[in-house]
Order: sequence, then structure tokens, then C-alpha cells
Amino acid sequence: MSCEAASALGVRVVVLAQHGTDCAVPVAGESLIGFPARHGALAELARRCSVVTFDHEQVDLDSVASLEDDGVVVRPGTETLRVAVDKGRMRAHLEAAGVPVPAHLALGVPGGGTRGAAPGTGAEETVGAIESFAARHGWPVVLKAARGGYDGRGVWVAGDPGCAREVVRRAAATATPLLAEELVRIDAELAVQVVRAPDGSTAAWQAAETAQVDGVCREVLSPGGLDAAERDRAAELARRVATAVQAVGVLAVELFSSGGRLLVNELAARPHNSGHWTIEGACTSQFENHLRAVLGLPLGDTAACFPHVATVNVFGAPGAGLPGDGLGAALGVRGAHVHLYGKEPRPGRKLGHVTVCGDDAADVRARAWAAARALGTPVPDALAPRPAAPGGAP
Amino acid sequence: MSCEAASALGVRVVVLAQHGTDCAVPVAGESLIGFPARHGALAELARRCSVVTFDHEQVDLDSVASLEDDGVVVRPGTETLRVAVDKGRMRAHLEAAGVPVPAHLALGVPGGGTRGAAPGTGAEETVGAIESFAARHGWPVVLKAARGGYDGRGVWVAGDPGCAREVVRRAAATATPLLAEELVRIDAELAVQVVRAPDGSTAAWQAAETAQVDGVCREVLSPGGLDAAERDRAAELARRVATAVQAVGVLAVELFSSGGRLLVNELAARPHNSGHWTIEGACTSQFENHLRAVLGLPLGDTAACFPHVATVNVFGAPGAGLPGDGLGAALGVRGAHVHLYGKEPRPGRKLGHVTVCGDDAADVRARAWAAARALGTPVPDALAPRPAAPGGAP
Repeated sequence: MSCEAASALGVRVVVLAQHGTDCAVPVAGESLIGFPARHGALAELARRCSVVTFDHEQVDLDSVASLEDDGVVVRPGTETLRVAVDKGRMRAHLEAAGVPVPAHLALGVPGGGTRGAAPGTGAEETVGAIESFAARHGWPVVLKAARGGYDGRGVWVAGDPGCAREVVRRAAATATPLLAEELVRIDAELAVQVVRAPDGSTAAWQAAETAQVDGVCREVLSPGGLDAAERDRAAELARRVATAVQAVGVLAVELFSSGGRLLVNELAARPHNSGHWTIEGACTSQFENHLRAVLGLPLGDTAACFPHVATVNVFGAPGAGLPGDGLGAALGVRGAHVHLYGKEPRPGRKLGHVTVCGDDAADVRARAWAAARALGTPVPDALAPRPAAPGGAP
Repeated sequence: MSCEAASALGVRVVVLAQHGTDCAVPVAGESLIGFPARHGALAELARRCSVVTFDHEQVDLDSVASLEDDGVVVRPGTETLRVAVDKGRMRAHLEAAGVPVPAHLALGVPGGGTRGAAPGTGAEETVGAIESFAARHGWPVVLKAARGGYDGRGVWVAGDPGCAREVVRRAAATATPLLAEELVRIDAELAVQVVRAPDGSTAAWQAAETAQVDGVCREVLSPGGLDAAERDRAAELARRVATAVQAVGVLAVELFSSGGRLLVNELAARPHNSGHWTIEGACTSQFENHLRAVLGLPLGDTAACFPHVATVNVFGAPGAGLPGDGLGAALGVRGAHVHLYGKEPRPGRKLGHVTVCGDDAADVRARAWAAARALGTPVPDALAPRPAAPGGAP
């Protein structure tokens, strides 16, 4: 999607992809096949570009830092990326900047061991630290992998010390750094996209309500059920976060709304699934504004163009065919904007998304789900929308 | 721009391009370098695709017809293309279908000669035919190359028999078939994009007002100054035309508004410059709907998303640099959607376009011109917009 935005602006893209079959390869002007966690591939990419940016986090940050030291323009910079990819570092950094985050305790790698090593007595110390944390914040305690978790992977809810010990044991065996966190009572999950220019100016898109099932984002509704005051508070908070982490480009800020408070949960220092609604739903998409920011061009207007926008992710299901098999049926849904990523389908793999814009929240949501279902997406019971008004969804 | 739309739908594009530097090459999944007027290149393209379609007319139609005979799915088909590319054939075909066109007379190649041959006595017969036509419709008479003219090339206004003789002499020398036409008093020039599916269903976008300078389209305003009744009549007429020529895919219909009548002037059986406003201005762009139609997928909603949309074409100017040099200034104009085509700049060459959407006709027009000017486009005196309201355009 970044390549589509770059094409319009006449900006030439060189993609560093791991495989020739990666979905950005056919639409990038130039591709470089290599492993983004290897210095050689990153250095070759830098040689061919005037600015290096990212659409995922599986990058070796020490290599990126050494490129920066050599004068390569990397946006966002390594310091921003280090904060965004490490939950412990991120929470500490934001807390120091006065940004509300859940109560937490960085635990490091239990026992300090390396991958495969037997957990030493240090692991028991970690369990003890979790028990002390629970004494202040109560059980259950949420334990998270500080790095590398996504889509619900790397999150465990420990109801008691025995559960915590089991999580610690596995984390020690895999050398996974842990973070303990209070279990926040979540009234709503929000996502705000914000873009920050090299000169420090920021612009935020309207906040969206997101719905996760098993930790995986299934739908994004902007503004969903959020009232204007809450949206404004979320946007303001996201801009503060972007400044605190010195982002350049798009920063996706995921928030918990809990008892009237907004707490920052996750950051992604790049265009993010929770902002795909901006492609059709906002004056400037997150992809175009990311490019504008990292290239030092003026930021585009982030205003929403419609009262309601719904985006539903398209997933593979067991036994389902290619999502393209359902393309005709999906495009038969009035106003359905279908984006398929050209990925090999696997059950549970995100294969695309559908966006519908309009005047009525329930109607756009029902139509987006109708199109996603036509593309083979299983509909979780928890999210099955009410049927649309007659004529709303065929 | 078709490739950008195809990318979103997960549709793989193979482009037949004359040069590796053609602007579609970097964004197409696959490219084939060859001459589209040669059978071999077209046949190889057909071998790699399930459907063949077009984004220009410089194609050998006999080769296309022989591919169709061999069972290749070509959309639009050769018969539609033959009507669209030949003004004489097009006018005769539409007149037979009851569609109003300017009064005209197909003259063939003066003298029936071949390129380079001296005009024989037949050329005098052609001049005589023009004089008879003028006796009914008055001087001046508009003489047009029946095929191959575009952007004002191939159109001559002959004020008297001497002028006509000179045009006929040159047409005979270049074996150019001519068409004589009444000089229509043009109150406005309109363009309507219509899309027709293989099953015969059609959908039209809102009509736009276009402004030409020296025969070249400089701006497209949808709806511009057109009132609702005129827009509806234009859309209805365009749908009739699409059915009359059995189009599949997008058909651009250019119309003269003259003394309360609408007359069809030109057709293009493909996405067209006059419909670029649909990318941001309509629910489904002409590019996506062209793909949907030629692939047999349901047509998307053609409704306009904003009260006013202005598109201004970006041109090279003598001494101007690359349009990208002005990209920062152009993107500094609020709401400017910039599309640069990656073409080598030349004075008078169309290098891109800018679209601005909003509530106020004069404001969106002024902002689109401000951005186009920033990209190096010279502003013709005839079209210089009034300054925007304060704050409208930086």
C-alpha cells in the first residue's frame, strides 16, 4: 500500500524483501531480495535510496544504528524504533514523559539466562518480583514478552503464582524478556494514527475503536462509538507520544480506555493495520503521509471524509480457497473497498481488508463484514454485526 | 493508475510497453517490452493474461481482431475500438442509434491517394464536397483528421474554400482521411465517464465541465457550473452511447453543450484524463471500475463523494525542471492530491495532474491550480482562477 501511494507521488521505491514472492515486490519499482536482519542487505538498500524507512519491525537495530552513524537518513531513527519495539523500554520512556501507561514492572529475561539454558535461581527471583507486583496491583497479573510479541502472541494472563511460575519457566527457556502488567479493565480499545515530520510538527487522524478477538484485530471503526471529547483526548495523547518518542513518519498508538482514563498499550512506528481505514476514509492516507514525512515533504490533511468508516480484516479459514475466489461477491457489496495483499492463504493469516465509508455506523460495519465474509473471513460470534438495514448489504 | 487500482484488488497486471522507461513498468507486476501495433507482441501479451484491455489507442486493430477470433478475451472488443478511433465511423454509428452529434460529412482520404502521392483530381472533388456542405451549414467548416488526432492535433477550422483546399492538399499528401463538421457554437464542454459491464449494465459518474486551451484539456471540474438537469441528461446520453458502441469497461464521452443541446464530440474506450477526478472524488475510480468491468466483476458505486472536485493537468514548461522539484510546494497546498506520471518533462507534455475535493467550486479550483503551478505548469491567461479565499491556498 506504501508502493501504491508512492506511485501517485512519482516517488521511486526500492523494497528489501525476504522473498521474491513478498507482496510488495510486484508493485515496487525495484526490489532487493535479502534478509532485513543482516547488515549487508540493509547497507545495499541504503546505498540505493535517499531515505530508508520500514513497514515491519523484523530489522536488526544495531545494523540500522550503524547505517545512521555512517550518515544514512533513516526515518524513523533507531532510537524511536528501540522504544517502539520493546514494551518495557516504551513504558518507561512514556511514563517519564508523563504519558499514562498501565502499571508495570520490567522483569528482563528470567534468570538472565540465554536461550535453551536451564532456569537458574534467578527465575525464582522473577516469580518473587511478580508476587510483590501482584501484592500492589492484585491478581491476575498480565505477563508479556517485552519484545517480538504481536497479534496476541506473547501475552499471558497469570491468575496465581503457579501460573506465573510456568510462564517464567518457559520465558527462561527461550531467553524471552518479560514485563509484568496490571490487568486493565478495558472499556474500549482505541487506535490513533499520528504522523510527525522531521521538523517536529504532528498531525493526527480521528481515533478509531478496534475490536480484538484472541488478541488479533478484526475490525476498526472510526470513530465507532467514541464521542468527540474522547476522540480529541486520544488524538492529543497520540501527538504527545509521537513527540516523546521523536517519531518521524506514522506512529500507530494503541490505547486502552479504562474507567475514563486513556492508557497507552502499544506503539508501531510505521503505517499500521489499525490505520488502513485512512486510505478511503481520510483526505490523506497513513501511507501517503508516512512517505511525505520521511521525505521531508509537507504533511497532508488528516481530516476524515465521512461520518463513519469501518474496516474489517480478511483472514484465511480452514478449507477456504483463495480470497480472490470471493472477489466478485465482495465487490457486489455496495461501497466495499477491497484490498487483497496477494499472500498465500493460511487459516488465521491476515490476507487483506475491506473498508466501507458512509453516514451510518451500523450500516458501514455490516457492509464491511458482508464483504469480508464473502472473501472467506470467518466471523467471530463476539463480533457478528446486526443485519444491515434493508438494501444495505446484499 | 490502473496498476495502483489492480494492486489493491490483488489483480496481477502484465503491461505491454514500448520502452522499459514507460511509466507503467515500475508498478506493473510484469512487463513485456514490445510494439503494440505488432501482432507478435500482442499475441505474447494475450498468452500471459486472462483478459486483454487498453490504456491507449495506438494498437493494431486487425491484430486485435485476429486474437479475438482465436478466442482471446479482449475488452473492449475490436468493434467498439474501431468505432471509437474513427470519428467518421463513430458519428455515423451514433447517428444511426439516435444519439445527437454535430452535422458532419465523411470525406475519406482526399483523392483516395496513398501517403506521399500527389493529390489527383479527386482532391478537387473533396473540396467541392466541402463547399456543398458549407452551403448547407455555413462557413467556417471544421475539418478533422478522422483518425489519429488528439489534444487538438488534426483539427483545422477552414473559413473559406481556399483554406479548405490547403487542408485537403496536406491531407492528400499524408493520406489522412478527413471529416467535415459544422462549427458548433460551444457553450460548455462536458465529459462523462461511463462504465459498461459484459452483461450490458452501465453506471455513469457525475458529468464534469472541461476547459481546453489550444485543444488540450487543462482542467476538469465536476460538476463545475453544470446544473443537476444538465448533468443528468449528459449521464443518460453517455449510457446510451456506451450501449450503442457495445463498450465493455470505461468509456469517456466528451460532449458539446450548444444552445441547450448536447452533442457527442469524442469517445475514448478506456480510462481517460477527463475522469482522473474520480480517483479521490468518487466512491469507485474509473480505473477500478474499468478493471471490474473487463474482469466481469460487479461494478462499483460511481457516486461523487464531495460537492466539488477540481482536477488540473500538470504540464512541462520551457526551462522548468522536473515536476518533482515542486512537489514540496504542491503538497503544501491544503488537500492537494498530486499524481506524477514519471514521464520525462518536455514543454507541453502532460506530466501528471492534481485533484482537490471540497465544498466550494472556486476554492477547490484555485487550490488545484496553485498546486499545478507549484509543479511548473504554466497557467493560461484564459483559465487563471480568481485568488482563493484567505487561507484557501498558501
